[in-house]
Amino acid sequence: MSTFKFTIATTEKLARTGVINTAHGEIRTPAFMPVGTAGTVKGMLPESVRETGADIILGNTYHLMLRPSAEVVKKLGGLHKFMNWDRPILTDSGGFQVMSLSKLRKITEEGVTFQSHLDGSTHMLTPERAIDIQNMLDSDITMVLDECTPYPSTEEETAHSMRLSMRWAERCKTAFEKRDGYGLFGIVQGGMFEHLRKESAHTLKDIGFDGYAVGGLAVGEGQEVMFDVLDYTVPELPQDKPRYLMGVGKPSDIVGAVARGIDMFDCVIPTRSGRFGRAYVEDGELNIKNACHAEDLNPIDATCTCYVCKNYSRAYIHHLFKAEEMLGPILMSWHNIHYYQKLMSDIRASIAEGKFNNFAAAFMEKHKE
Amino acid sequence: MSTFKFTIATTEKLARTGVINTAHGEIRTPAFMPVGTAGTVKGMLPESVRETGADIILGNTYHLMLRPSAEVVKKLGGLHKFMNWDRPILTDSGGFQVMSLSKLRKITEEGVTFQSHLDGSTHMLTPERAIDIQNMLDSDITMVLDECTPYPSTEEETAHSMRLSMRWAERCKTAFEKRDGYGLFGIVQGGMFEHLRKESAHTLKDIGFDGYAVGGLAVGEGQEVMFDVLDYTVPELPQDKPRYLMGVGKPSDIVGAVARGIDMFDCVIPTRSGRFGRAYVEDGELNIKNACHAEDLNPIDATCTCYVCKNYSRAYIHHLFKAEEMLGPILMSWHNIHYYQKLMSDIRASIAEGKFNNFAAAFMEKHKE
Repeated sequence: MSTFKFTIATTEKLARTGVINTAHGEIRTPAFMPVGTAGTVKGMLPESVRETGADIILGNTYHLMLRPSAEVVKKLGGLHKFMNWDRPILTDSGGFQVMSLSKLRKITEEGVTFQSHLDGSTHMLTPERAIDIQNMLDSDITMVLDECTPYPSTEEETAHSMRLSMRWAERCKTAFEKRDGYGLFGIVQGGMFEHLRKESAHTLKDIGFDGYAVGGLAVGEGQEVMFDVLDYTVPELPQDKPRYLMGVGKPSDIVGAVARGIDMFDCVIPTRSGRFGRAYVEDGELNIKNACHAEDLNPIDATCTCYVCKNYSRAYIHHLFKAEEMLGPILMSWHNIHYYQKLMSDIRASIAEGKFNNFAAAFMEKHKE
Repeated sequence: MSTFKFTIATTEKLARTGVINTAHGEIRTPAFMPVGTAGTVKGMLPESVRETGADIILGNTYHLMLRPSAEVVKKLGGLHKFMNWDRPILTDSGGFQVMSLSKLRKITEEGVTFQSHLDGSTHMLTPERAIDIQNMLDSDITMVLDECTPYPSTEEETAHSMRLSMRWAERCKTAFEKRDGYGLFGIVQGGMFEHLRKESAHTLKDIGFDGYAVGGLAVGEGQEVMFDVLDYTVPELPQDKPRYLMGVGKPSDIVGAVARGIDMFDCVIPTRSGRFGRAYVEDGELNIKNACHAEDLNPIDATCTCYVCKNYSRAYIHHLFKAEEMLGPILMSWHNIHYYQKLMSDIRASIAEGKFNNFAAAFMEKHKE
């Protein structure tokens, strides 16, 4: 079992490419983590996820703690074995989903009490419990419990919320049992306030983590504001640790964030868009349900080398969506995850060659909002 | 492109094992055809269907003529290319689904007029049109248009219906353009009346087909009645042509029908049962949604060598169903299709070794109704 470590191979301005070593293998960075909410990347076999080039997936603590429960996953040998994915897994702390999905939640200094969106049962998530759950899941990368500050919030609310998250981060660090190959990441909060983001980053640095996430973004603030926050937040984070922008995002968000020094991303966009019939292609997006694809013999993207584009026409996938066949969402999710992994691979290669600046400029121009 | 031919390798009493050569490859018999209703075996990649051991799949003319239409499939290169399945395909004539799915159908000597269950549009299916559609789909095995006689029906109704189907069969034979590697099958009707089944078989033999199907069974008559019908019908069919029992069935139906001289089967049971959480296992069936599987680390079937049983526990698949994740139906369908293909492989091997009689007796004892 390897030590948990991050090795930067090449940098170009703020962008970096490297490798994170974990208990379950290497993660090439910048990395995109497909989301496997309930122990499955929706509609995908784990082998197919891997085939797209993914080194790591994300699991949702909130969903798994409610069903089948962390205790059951542990009993069954951990999340890797449970879901047949033997490579690295990062789990979030559950905090974000508690806020967005559960009912009757109540936040105190101790933690958050909430009712399950599944059966109304009452649960409590504390920093210590969040760490315990992620330990039972056997995540390679554990996230601290935080409160994702609502957007918009006043400066006072944001400061209050961020400082609670910082006290929780400290408790998480204490509760986290260091094992070889496993890491714990802190999460910077502070909303859209520069001094609060800096305060948060410094507090986390003082506690000391294996990696640093930027949370509370992609909540409706828009790309420009998000990039602003990264511009003043990322330089406050340690150079030698991985940086993870949580829940982001669209392809252009990712390219822009890599340019600002981010190493890791996760987002449901490729699978969710895919299930709704939207595909990412070389020159933008398309909706496969549109009538113009009904007799189109071309693949989703003629420049794409994924399994789907090698074997199926737009006309066929259009038909699958019209007929409401499961294979439609399956093929579209597959293509989109491949698109994202190909993007990350292109980003890594361009940084390694010192050409990322050009790559990013061209990409942002093409995908202007 | 090979000639369409059937070669019997070994017989044991009425059971036979052999090979059908078609334009798109060999079909080992007895064969089970997974059903790909709308141009996809629900939830399965074609590669996975093939990996279970399937040599041929079935497509539904009714569904494909309505959506995306035979004309579009032809324009897109035929059904094989459309759905990425380069092996043999058999299409039914559409007759059965017109009866079971469409509204306001009207049967005349000319054919059947009906309203689409999708959009209420009016269509006509004649023997000539059924052949034309299947030709556009590029099916390796085309079925004649027949009327699937309702069950129960009086002797007079059954005779009337069967004789109409025979006149349609003759028109189908005339309309069918013989191409190398492609075959046309007739369908025996006649309900549960011995003399009508025999009359139908003789009529079809006189017309002359590349294979003979037994239709109008598995409509609620029960296994015993079905076997009775086969007992007096199959001996009336030519020895040297494949025999196909349409829409059948449960594993024990298949074993019993092979013992009565049937070579081909199709049924939605493995995929439909799988989508509802039911799996076929060595010693019967199980419902993966039952609570007893929630923490069961065993595979669906410990004796099974399929991809699913090699990689996933009952507990995980139980979880997928509870969480309503697509992967649940996918994995269960896969296992069930593999179960059926393994059954066919065991049947073929036991006939080849002259041990089918024992195999069938033991199987029927174990799977007694």
